[in-house]
Amino acid sequence: MIEIAIVGGSGYTGGELIRLLQKHPDIEIKSITSRQYNQTPVDKVHPHIRGTNLVFEDIAPSNLDSDIVFTATPHGASMKIVPEILETGSKVIDLSGDYRFNDVDTYEKWYDIKHTSPIEAVYGLPEIHRKEIKKANLVANPGCFPTGAILANLPLSKEELVDNIIVDSKTGVSGGGVNPVPVFHYPNCADNVIPYNITSHRHGPEIQQELGAFSNVKVSFTPHLVPVIRGILTTSHSFLKDLDYSNEKIIDETKIKIANIYKKQYKNEPFVKILDDGEIPSLNSVRGSNFAHVGGFDIDNNGRLIVISAIDNLVKGASGQAIHNMNLMCGFPEETAIDGYGMRP
Amino acid sequence: MIEIAIVGGSGYTGGELIRLLQKHPDIEIKSITSRQYNQTPVDKVHPHIRGTNLVFEDIAPSNLDSDIVFTATPHGASMKIVPEILETGSKVIDLSGDYRFNDVDTYEKWYDIKHTSPIEAVYGLPEIHRKEIKKANLVANPGCFPTGAILANLPLSKEELVDNIIVDSKTGVSGGGVNPVPVFHYPNCADNVIPYNITSHRHGPEIQQELGAFSNVKVSFTPHLVPVIRGILTTSHSFLKDLDYSNEKIIDETKIKIANIYKKQYKNEPFVKILDDGEIPSLNSVRGSNFAHVGGFDIDNNGRLIVISAIDNLVKGASGQAIHNMNLMCGFPEETAIDGYGMRP
Amino acid sequence: MIEIAIVGGSGYTGGELIRLLQKHPDIEIKSITSRQYNQTPVDKVHPHIRGTNLVFEDIAPSNLDSDIVFTATPHGASMKIVPEILETGSKVIDLSGDYRFNDVDTYEKWYDIKHTSPIEAVYGLPEIHRKEIKKANLVANPGCFPTGAILANLPLSKEELVDNIIVDSKTGVSGGGVNPVPVFHYPNCADNVIPYNITSHRHGPEIQQELGAFSNVKVSFTPHLVPVIRGILTTSHSFLKDLDYSNEKIIDETKIKIANIYKKQYKNEPFVKILDDGEIPSLNSVRGSNFAHVGGFDIDNNGRLIVISAIDNLVKGASGQAIHNMNLMCGFPEETAIDGYGMRP
Amino acid sequence: MIEIAIVGGSGYTGGELIRLLQKHPDIEIKSITSRQYNQTPVDKVHPHIRGTNLVFEDIAPSNLDSDIVFTATPHGASMKIVPEILETGSKVIDLSGDYRFNDVDTYEKWYDIKHTSPIEAVYGLPEIHRKEIKKANLVANPGCFPTGAILANLPLSKEELVDNIIVDSKTGVSGGGVNPVPVFHYPNCADNVIPYNITSHRHGPEIQQELGAFSNVKVSFTPHLVPVIRGILTTSHSFLKDLDYSNEKIIDETKIKIANIYKKQYKNEPFVKILDDGEIPSLNSVRGSNFAHVGGFDIDNNGRLIVISAIDNLVKGASGQAIHNMNLMCGFPEETAIDGYGMRP
Repeated sequence: MIEIAIVGGSGYTGGELIRLLQKHPDIEIKSITSRQYNQTPVDKVHPHIRGTNLVFEDIAPSNLDSDIVFTATPHGASMKIVPEILETGSKVIDLSGDYRFNDVDTYEKWYDIKHTSPIEAVYGLPEIHRKEIKKANLVANPGCFPTGAILANLPLSKEELVDNIIVDSKTGVSGGGVNPVPVFHYPNCADNVIPYNITSHRHGPEIQQELGAFSNVKVSFTPHLVPVIRGILTTSHSFLKDLDYSNEKIIDETKIKIANIYKKQYKNEPFVKILDDGEIPSLNSVRGSNFAHVGGFDIDNNGRLIVISAIDNLVKGASGQAIHNMNLMCGFPEETAIDGYGMRP
Repeated sequence: MIEIAIVGGSGYTGGELIRLLQKHPDIEIKSITSRQYNQTPVDKVHPHIRGTNLVFEDIAPSNLDSDIVFTATPHGASMKIVPEILETGSKVIDLSGDYRFNDVDTYEKWYDIKHTSPIEAVYGLPEIHRKEIKKANLVANPGCFPTGAILANLPLSKEELVDNIIVDSKTGVSGGGVNPVPVFHYPNCADNVIPYNITSHRHGPEIQQELGAFSNVKVSFTPHLVPVIRGILTTSHSFLKDLDYSNEKIIDETKIKIANIYKKQYKNEPFVKILDDGEIPSLNSVRGSNFAHVGGFDIDNNGRLIVISAIDNLVKGASGQAIHNMNLMCGFPEETAIDGYGMRP
Repeated sequence: MIEIAIVGGSGYTGGELIRLLQKHPDIEIKSITSRQYNQTPVDKVHPHIRGTNLVFEDIAPSNLDSDIVFTATPHGASMKIVPEILETGSKVIDLSGDYRFNDVDTYEKWYDIKHTSPIEAVYGLPEIHRKEIKKANLVANPGCFPTGAILANLPLSKEELVDNIIVDSKTGVSGGGVNPVPVFHYPNCADNVIPYNITSHRHGPEIQQELGAFSNVKVSFTPHLVPVIRGILTTSHSFLKDLDYSNEKIIDETKIKIANIYKKQYKNEPFVKILDDGEIPSLNSVRGSNFAHVGGFDIDNNGRLIVISAIDNLVKGASGQAIHNMNLMCGFPEETAIDGYGMRP
Repeated sequence: MIEIAIVGGSGYTGGELIRLLQKHPDIEIKSITSRQYNQTPVDKVHPHIRGTNLVFEDIAPSNLDSDIVFTATPHGASMKIVPEILETGSKVIDLSGDYRFNDVDTYEKWYDIKHTSPIEAVYGLPEIHRKEIKKANLVANPGCFPTGAILANLPLSKEELVDNIIVDSKTGVSGGGVNPVPVFHYPNCADNVIPYNITSHRHGPEIQQELGAFSNVKVSFTPHLVPVIRGILTTSHSFLKDLDYSNEKIIDETKIKIANIYKKQYKNEPFVKILDDGEIPSLNSVRGSNFAHVGGFDIDNNGRLIVISAIDNLVKGASGQAIHNMNLMCGFPEETAIDGYGMRP
């Protein structure tokens, strides 16, 4: 039985950590912190979580005294506490953007903030960095968009099949967090689609970093807010190099080849499901689950390849993946507590 | 390890049975039937359920050969197969309306159908009939609206506190099943509220039967369709007998008294949560879970009492409650596989 | 051509006033004020309204110099400016709660605020106060819930048919205004139903005032937030006095009698549509329009009568009704600019 | 006063034609046909349209005897009646796909149907074909996706700025029509995003035809269903030819140049609004209106240009544009009846 702590547990990712960890036989939630809700029972903030004795506490990072600490803190806040927690001997899984970049300059440019305590961390996408995660003391849990975008395109970059990828993502509103702001006001985002940060979203360079590690591929990323609570549907468009797309037979063969490359890449991955020909990923098939569905693999008569992924942004895109990382770091079976099916409808 | 079968598993309640039973250590799904999808792998119909070997089969009722059979069939269809299944020695949990009524005439009047094979069954609301359920061979799983309405009003009837109850329910669209019809067409029911069967819904007499067993209370029931996928929010209005509501002090004391009656009634019930003063049930606190939240207990200056319940219609209102019944019938711990927290947001 | 001004025009009701007044041939919007958006073109705040030259200005109430002033200001703010505007000779239509109560004590109790400048006003529900509105200098535009609830129950009170009315209302989120708060955060109110102020909503005494003017009827009011942008669906439950509801024939005759009473009451009202037997009001039939649909008129076997109304809270429940009042005050044809059909789907 | 007829008026586009034409001073709806609803008053099918005397009739095409006939019939059905109507001397605006293609082979290939009566028609996008529309007897009203996609990319093709365009569209569910099918069932498409026909949608070749008329540009089109009632948000991605995107100054200048090209192209167009720098189109700004908003004009550091358009699929994408075409064909002022602002929220 290991002890875990959740720092900043009053938001959506905090709620999801508790919900998912309920089913984990090998851990105990020792403490959950919140400055705002200090001494408030958890069910007053997360009314779906009843029957625990959990109470928010305002605990200094150096006093958490847990084996694993999840820092569900905003970017800029994590860097102020992570070093201190690591010094106490705890391992840390950070859900902010603070430790995701190999290059501090990239972080500082895109987040427009000075990084005051850079530390080496492992990028916590198990499908790429499983080995390093197992040995890591600090894991930077991936962003939600990058999780979906990288999984949808990893084989294309590894096999150097394309030069450019256009990532057009559609995200549920929970990705924006628990705090109300005008753009997430129900009357504004219901029955609406809102493109935002169309060339300037911080998750763009994160996707570029991970996919660009395997080839010279260049990624162009644009997110859209859709009236959905959870989920990210990522549509990837790219033009296959050296494809004679005037030849239908070649197109058909290439589709199969591409699908097979994906199947091979992910064949041992417990949380990536490659859909069969004719199946298309959709959000309600992964809602509430840690699964990523990847499918499409279609090529049109202009040689454009289309690959689509679907994840739950709060699970595979945040808290579920964080638990996956914990399982790897602690030597638990990978799927513990996060193998539940999605909730559909 | 007991073997179970699901008859008519291609709908929403079938999907929920599989989703929830994934976490049940003591059962095995031996077969899942569907005439329409015979020989189709389950994930082609329930794309959120991947990695099983389940395949729909078209099996005759007499060949199911399972310890427990869930009949997730429409009313009228259940009565044609339940007797046959019982004869094979299986126990049956029927999710249709066919066996919910003590009085066949009531069934035939409200369902406008001849009951061809009445059999004695236990009404499967554990909060009222736990003892009988444990010994039953045939359990009639309650309707979704009755589950929410009965839990919200049981203490009022038991204590004979009111003469009339007005039950104003708001239901998610999944209650209407998986088949598309005009009223459930997205452009029609999104951004809309649709009252229906305002004095003639079949669940009215079912609520009346169970609440009327304890007193002479008369229940008036009206459902509304709201743009929600899952969940039933039931608002119960009633006028307390013999209350001097001109006296504010008496009103305040009565509120506390009422809340205490509810707490006492449900204090040993694992799935009914009585909310604290100031908390109000809402659907997203029970989404995906088998919990019923009951709260309100407020009285206005006309002496009207308001009690509110929230359930997930597909879980506590259908498949979760069916598993609860199975646990009772098989002597498993009651909460097995259905104690998961709700999914919020 | 008369000149009008809109004070506090950056919210939803301000946007609706501009949208609807676009089609009014007899008025000109002279000024639209906003302290926050002073000197900002209207289309930067209301991006659906393009091609006007309207710019928000920060104008003192005494300088508005318009024939009609709409004060779309919050309660508490209106009372600070309305007297000053009236003194300049303008007529005022106030969309806040400040002038809706005949009795200042009721206002102060329910709004928990001191009324610093009570002035006699006409309650602006044309279906009751048309004559007085025509001659008024100050019209208090009704609340959104009261508009729906009063229209659904006026004949019952006038004819003294019932003693108590339970008003169970379901409202879209735009009723809460343009400012983001946690309860209106998309991930919270999507896929949810949230009862609130279950015995303490300020619109309760407003409904009571207007219905109670005709009889001793007592109104119990409970609102619910539903995931809808616009619209209020009001379900009214009451028990008819002296009805022998054990007699089906009498029930059937009474239904017809009730429907006829409603048809007679509203037969000359341009904006109240009494639905035929078998038709049920729903929100998407009135969306965007100034119409109120009223229907139901059903009686169950406990003698409960159910009447349902549907309005668009921002039109008939706010800006459309305000324009109706303006038309009456200015002697324009009543329906000018507000006779457009609803938008369905 | 001209007389118009609507053939197939029971669907969404029929409802929108009636709603919008209510405000047209120069026309009279002489007849509205429906085989299914023959002799049914219009308000029983379109409950938002009350107070007319319109009744559905089953009239033979040759007996419509109107100046303008809108055929709101499915593809395959239009071709069977349009020739006959034209022979009676009526002008026809066809809302199906039957007459949109210059090349019958393309139609037959993509619609998988034999065209039994090809006739020359004008493609009814006024922004391209205004002159021909004015003189046409048969106008093929554009598809909803093509309307949004063509307007978003017309200047790029005219100026030969790009070789390939990727059109990633997000559509509301009303685009699928009034008939319930599984994919449009509320529990399926609420809280979901569903890509479909990802390389094979019939609107692809229609977009290609119109944009390809000005250059050799190749269009790749993928639609997504989003939980929205109305609206199409089209995100266009393309790589500008010969752009030195390593140079930020050049990127910035190019953005301005592109925006200016769009402003120039559409400067006299009443229904196309080019948004200012920093404004992004979204669906709720055009909901219910005939306006198309076009904006974005951003270029990322890979040289990708992004242009976004928003329309209401039932108005600018169908019935509103049809009325625009009628106005042109009849010599009415272009904006008559369709200049209303959108409805937001």
